[in-house]
Amino acid sequence: MPGHKGFVLWFTGLSGAGKSTLANKLVAEFQTRGYNVELLDGDEVRTNLSKGLGFSKEDRDTNIRRIGWVARVLARNGVIAITAAISPYAEIRNEIRADVEKEGRAAFVEAFACAPLEALIERDVKGLYKKALAGEIANFTGVSDPYEAPEKPEFVAYTSEETVEQSAERLLAYLQEQGLIFQETA
Amino acid sequence: MPGHKGFVLWFTGLSGAGKSTLANKLVAEFQTRGYNVELLDGDEVRTNLSKGLGFSKEDRDTNIRRIGWVARVLARNGVIAITAAISPYAEIRNEIRADVEKEGRAAFVEAFACAPLEALIERDVKGLYKKALAGEIANFTGVSDPYEAPEKPEFVAYTSEETVEQSAERLLAYLQEQGLIFQETA
Repeated sequence: MPGHKGFVLWFTGLSGAGKSTLANKLVAEFQTRGYNVELLDGDEVRTNLSKGLGFSKEDRDTNIRRIGWVARVLARNGVIAITAAISPYAEIRNEIRADVEKEGRAAFVEAFACAPLEALIERDVKGLYKKALAGEIANFTGVSDPYEAPEKPEFVAYTSEETVEQSAERLLAYLQEQGLIFQETA
Repeated sequence: MPGHKGFVLWFTGLSGAGKSTLANKLVAEFQTRGYNVELLDGDEVRTNLSKGLGFSKEDRDTNIRRIGWVARVLARNGVIAITAAISPYAEIRNEIRADVEKEGRAAFVEAFACAPLEALIERDVKGLYKKALAGEIANFTGVSDPYEAPEKPEFVAYTSEETVEQSAERLLAYLQEQGLIFQETA
């Protein structure tokens, strides 16, 4: 998109809270509108940048910092960089936000995929919570590892109460209000 | 630059052969012309993506592959991604080229900073060759580690025979010929 300023759209939330679903919905929407957009999900980054890292706090922090650096470099070049990793620690997310804002070449938008843990355990799409509760997966966020919800996210998607279309529509409206994307003309 | 297709401009060459000097010259030129351009040098990537990696062949390959992945992701989003790491192994460079070309969303331009090893040893700007020849630096490319020159680079800068301005001018002309940058209008 000509002359467009990039931004980092940083999703955070528990496993199964709908980060990737919403992120993919937005990727499709941004592509339709002609923006350069890149989705950095946890798995792709692990394969390409973080092979060898495990799931200790230190290794998870390193992985998130790497996602943050790539997202920042993309965004300062006019790309919409979307991340959809759990990113459980507020300190690391805030550090990445500070790096982006200090540079002043892109915006940072934290989008919290908010759903009650109980609902996620009940739904358990991938069967991971069951395994985590049975102790078969160590360091599982929300069960055996902490999740620190953002205190002041730019956007909250109530993914157990609204459809992905509703969340996406509200988020697009927010981004337009902020001047980060252009008004869609019919 | 509106509607501009990105490309990877991959410099390779021995330590001291002038990769970074030429890369920085081009960054300035592209910025003046209004392009989104990012220089990924070996050090920045090591700090942000490859902390913990050493200088064994395996670790160096991993570092270069990471630079390659970031450059590819940038270039497919319309950015001019310039790399200036020694990148001594042809196999890894060719693997990165193949990944970019297979995707078909950006071009790959290999630019060889060519200077005779003897000239670099004599000049030895950073004093590294002296140390490497004395055995104080292990795995030093060209001395105690191999350097595989590209067989068919898109561009060769003869950095011991031409000035950085001359190399830059020829390279810009090549990129214009290929339609990768627009003709400069006075």
